[in-house]
Amino acid sequence: MRIGELSARSGVPAATIKYYVREGLLPPGSRTKANQAEYDEAHLRRLRLVRALLEVGGLSVATSRRVIAILDDPATSPLKGMGKAHRALSGDRLEPAAGPPDGDAASLARVDELLAARGWQVGAAHPARAQLAAAIATAESLGMGDALGLLDGYADAAEAVAEADLDLATAPATLDESIERMLVWTVVGDRVLTALRRLAQEAVAVRRS
Amino acid sequence: MRIGELSARSGVPAATIKYYVREGLLPPGSRTKANQAEYDEAHLRRLRLVRALLEVGGLSVATSRRVIAILDDPATSPLKGMGKAHRALSGDRLEPAAGPPDGDAASLARVDELLAARGWQVGAAHPARAQLAAAIATAESLGMGDALGLLDGYADAAEAVAEADLDLATAPATLDESIERMLVWTVVGDRVLTALRRLAQEAVAVRRS
Repeated sequence: MRIGELSARSGVPAATIKYYVREGLLPPGSRTKANQAEYDEAHLRRLRLVRALLEVGGLSVATSRRVIAILDDPATSPLKGMGKAHRALSGDRLEPAAGPPDGDAASLARVDELLAARGWQVGAAHPARAQLAAAIATAESLGMGDALGLLDGYADAAEAVAEADLDLATAPATLDESIERMLVWTVVGDRVLTALRRLAQEAVAVRRS
Repeated sequence: MRIGELSARSGVPAATIKYYVREGLLPPGSRTKANQAEYDEAHLRRLRLVRALLEVGGLSVATSRRVIAILDDPATSPLKGMGKAHRALSGDRLEPAAGPPDGDAASLARVDELLAARGWQVGAAHPARAQLAAAIATAESLGMGDALGLLDGYADAAEAVAEADLDLATAPATLDESIERMLVWTVVGDRVLTALRRLAQEAVAVRRS
């Protein structure tokens, strides 16, 4: 199909499609004549994925490019694909940067304790450890150390959700499809969970008021 | 204290502190002499909050400014403060933009069904409704309609977490403090939950492999 049809079917303006191609988010169409490119169903699917990452997931172009690169260089198992996805995603808003000056070692120790208590085996370099430690240090620096009493309940919720996530990702027959589903759902599932948390907060507050 | 001490105590470079003042994230210090400003404990606290929103929460400067403005014009009840916070936060990465062309009405109906089934009373204009609808439409457009089977389990997790969130926010004595805690924890709690989800995904995948 020509770029006009790709635009109409995806709802994405042609100029935006060209921008995605320049940014390496979408493979170029095949040249048929000078100044004319032909796109196929794979482009349409990839375009939907790009929109999911950018618009629904709120990822940066750079992070989306890293996530999409995983699809073009597939992992050898769903577990390895998931590890790659977690690392690719950690570029966005997860780095502790200049967090509270002394909190980090103590907060990381707190994360290790939680993992040990739950029997969760997680590699030492997993980026979510630092993300969680930064969040803990932040809560403490703002005088909300009591929020850490919520960690166990949060971990229960996360574990229930993760079991369902893994069922979903490993359902399909092929490894490539399984990895694509894992990528998409890791990002989209975050949005689902935070949206539901907001809705539930509102509902609980209304019920209690 | 002078800016050097504020920088040392917060771990934030002086140039960054000046940038936050220019961007309206931090009130200016009081002028003592030409070219010299004096900061106090309230500045230090606000600076930690700004870092929490930007670095841990991953919010944009514009969204952080909207969130902080709520503190300077406090709501009359925790419920109203929470509503303001949810709206302020929805500027970041939550808008559906050009989502899948036909999914929106059907997806919003799906959200309404879920809310009704759970007895959650949520205002029609709450931004998380559109966020959830966009996520649902995206999953469907990518051939992952089966992910919607996970919504109920996700909603269970979100409700458990929201009950704990409300307990935490309404614990303090004063309304101002309650609203600040609600703001901070809404943002930081999202990061805690997504970090724990990643860690749990890894742990579950390792256990199953």
